[in-house]
Amino acid sequence: MKEAFITFKQIGTIRTPYYNNAPYQPVDQEEDSFFIEIHGDYVDGLNDLSKFSYAYVLFYAHQAQGRAEMVVSPPWAKGKKVGLFSSRSPVRPNPIGLSVVRIKEIRENMIFISGIDVFDGTPLLDVKPYIKDLDNKSDANYGWLDELDDKDHLTLHIKGIPHEH
Amino acid sequence: MKEAFITFKQIGTIRTPYYNNAPYQPVDQEEDSFFIEIHGDYVDGLNDLSKFSYAYVLFYAHQAQGRAEMVVSPPWAKGKKVGLFSSRSPVRPNPIGLSVVRIKEIRENMIFISGIDVFDGTPLLDVKPYIKDLDNKSDANYGWLDELDDKDHLTLHIKGIPHEH
Repeated sequence: MKEAFITFKQIGTIRTPYYNNAPYQPVDQEEDSFFIEIHGDYVDGLNDLSKFSYAYVLFYAHQAQGRAEMVVSPPWAKGKKVGLFSSRSPVRPNPIGLSVVRIKEIRENMIFISGIDVFDGTPLLDVKPYIKDLDNKSDANYGWLDELDDKDHLTLHIKGIPHEH
Repeated sequence: MKEAFITFKQIGTIRTPYYNNAPYQPVDQEEDSFFIEIHGDYVDGLNDLSKFSYAYVLFYAHQAQGRAEMVVSPPWAKGKKVGLFSSRSPVRPNPIGLSVVRIKEIRENMIFISGIDVFDGTPLLDVKPYIKDLDNKSDANYGWLDELDDKDHLTLHIKGIPHEH
């Protein structure tokens, strides 16, 4: 089967305090240090978004380097090797990142959000509402993470929650 | 701010029984009529994915036609107008579709899933595990959908559940 290429465009920029390194997953912060600036043409598209508690942010993981390997060993997973598509590694055939963020406030072209695991300047591809009935799967599980001895500890890393070792 | 363009590639194909029209959101089906075929190079990346109950499927909504309008009136919303980014309309600046699907079984290069709201032949961009702690937001809400008189009925449409009017 031949590969088809598809072109998308940057529609905004994600602003974070992470200039050199990012946590592996979102950390919630008190301050307004995480926000999304959307390009001017798209501002009217933000109407009503603040009525949702959460949104999906899709972004181009532009700092993900290298060729995607199909078997990966996620950080903190203590050497366990798993298939790439069962991981959230940013180094993928298509480096499209996905995070669920809490919407705090929308002002003009800026969406203030809870923490997100990306570098400052990350290109925005899309924002979608997280709708309770569609997206909240109460019977979701932890997949292979359940097989790890210290899953509870690992979960803190995955969620980016600071803790002592 | 100038627009930057980003190129992604098709990594597989979504197979559904929807040749001419698709429901607005996933419908679960008994049979194996919904599956994802992933291109051969990526098969090893599916390891361990079957340990998860749910996955995110990212796809190119290739049949979404026309220029994205920033204010939309979703089907079934009885004329209510909302901002595009507070809707799941496929006609967006970047027509990247996102669905949460239940993983039924993985055989070779095929992921058998619960229903998904796309046409047969839809290009696959990515598959990611849906991880309970990260993605299951029990305090998510319905946003502007709560303002509709017949939200409960509308929710059936959104979820693609067949019902009598």
